[in-house]
Amino acid sequence: MKFSKIPTATITRLSRYSRALEELDEQGLSVISSEKLAQFCEVNSAQIRKDLAYFGEFGVRGVGYLVKELLFEIKRILGLNKNWHLGIIGMGNMGFALIDHSNFPRQGYHFVAAFDNDPQKIGRMLSQGFPISPMSDLEKIALDRNIEIAVITTPAAKAQEVADLVTKTPIRGILNFAPVQLHVPEGFLVHHIDFTVKLDRLAYLLGNLPPDPSMSSASRSPRISKHLL
Amino acid sequence: MKFSKIPTATITRLSRYSRALEELDEQGLSVISSEKLAQFCEVNSAQIRKDLAYFGEFGVRGVGYLVKELLFEIKRILGLNKNWHLGIIGMGNMGFALIDHSNFPRQGYHFVAAFDNDPQKIGRMLSQGFPISPMSDLEKIALDRNIEIAVITTPAAKAQEVADLVTKTPIRGILNFAPVQLHVPEGFLVHHIDFTVKLDRLAYLLGNLPPDPSMSSASRSPRISKHLL
Repeated sequence: MKFSKIPTATITRLSRYSRALEELDEQGLSVISSEKLAQFCEVNSAQIRKDLAYFGEFGVRGVGYLVKELLFEIKRILGLNKNWHLGIIGMGNMGFALIDHSNFPRQGYHFVAAFDNDPQKIGRMLSQGFPISPMSDLEKIALDRNIEIAVITTPAAKAQEVADLVTKTPIRGILNFAPVQLHVPEGFLVHHIDFTVKLDRLAYLLGNLPPDPSMSSASRSPRISKHLL
Repeated sequence: MKFSKIPTATITRLSRYSRALEELDEQGLSVISSEKLAQFCEVNSAQIRKDLAYFGEFGVRGVGYLVKELLFEIKRILGLNKNWHLGIIGMGNMGFALIDHSNFPRQGYHFVAAFDNDPQKIGRMLSQGFPISPMSDLEKIALDRNIEIAVITTPAAKAQEVADLVTKTPIRGILNFAPVQLHVPEGFLVHHIDFTVKLDRLAYLLGNLPPDPSMSSASRSPRISKHLL
């Protein structure tokens, strides 16, 4: 198994499979066929089998996948059987929205620090049990609390400056919510979140919806909303 | 050209191509090869040609794509040469973060209404030029302002109730930020935003980074952050 050969699209689909399996597990399902799982995730079943084949053999012929087992294996593959430490930089509306969002800890992502340069915000105690720190403490706190990923939620104009500071710490990855492209040194990872890409897809489908909703083919799994991120 | 046959993955990639082309256009580039564009978007050039082939012939052999022209065509395909009217429901931190985010209007998505049921928030005038309205006005305002997409930013426990109300209006699509699966009738579109899927990918890559950053192959385009949503 050579990790570097695995397509990043496979990794993104594994996340979607794991979200689907979690939901199926919560619904009490113990076994699912690759066809059903594929339908749930909006891929074809050959794709699922191909994605999983990078990592070994899964599933029981004629039966399908054991939901809990496959979920465990995918989480292991993605490295989600460990907890990740996140630091958030920029405590505006987006910062507070994210730090309070229940999805993060549920998926093993724990905010362990928050930073801002606004004197009015610095020192404010958060419900997570730590105060907002000044940016000047970034390196020290990153070391002390073992921050692995920085989540940048500053205004666009500040984001590059913040990224430059982050790259001087042991943090090696950034999830960037600021609407700007960040430039970082080799060996450093930046993923950019742009909500409007998802809107484009929705807009495209809406623009091509059949006029009569009852005739729609655009929403074949009407009772399941789509995890498409 | 049969729209229903176009894979949704193609639509998502078209969004990414359009974001990349916008950036290249801003940088003053007028022509780009399919190889360069592919590298920029992290796909292979055959994929770009295949995706575009659904919609006609683009590019000049031996030259590449004219940046402005291809951008215009992709926006036309995605229906982004029109402006979309969005209504946001749930004016907590996430609601304010989104309504103030510059990416939306830049991409043709305009918030034309905001809703909340908190008496302390109702009536508050927003910088966008309209006040926060009570949910009881949803149907009337959706009609009056021609809302096409509802953006749900309520707590998880309220989101299904809100979605049920939305489906009773002429609005036909929901972008859901609440951490819960929404069930909607046939012919209605829901896309769910889950930031942690993006984190999974980052975490996976971080977990498999070579120890020496200078030896890294995980970040081959170090000066360009990735549009991966």
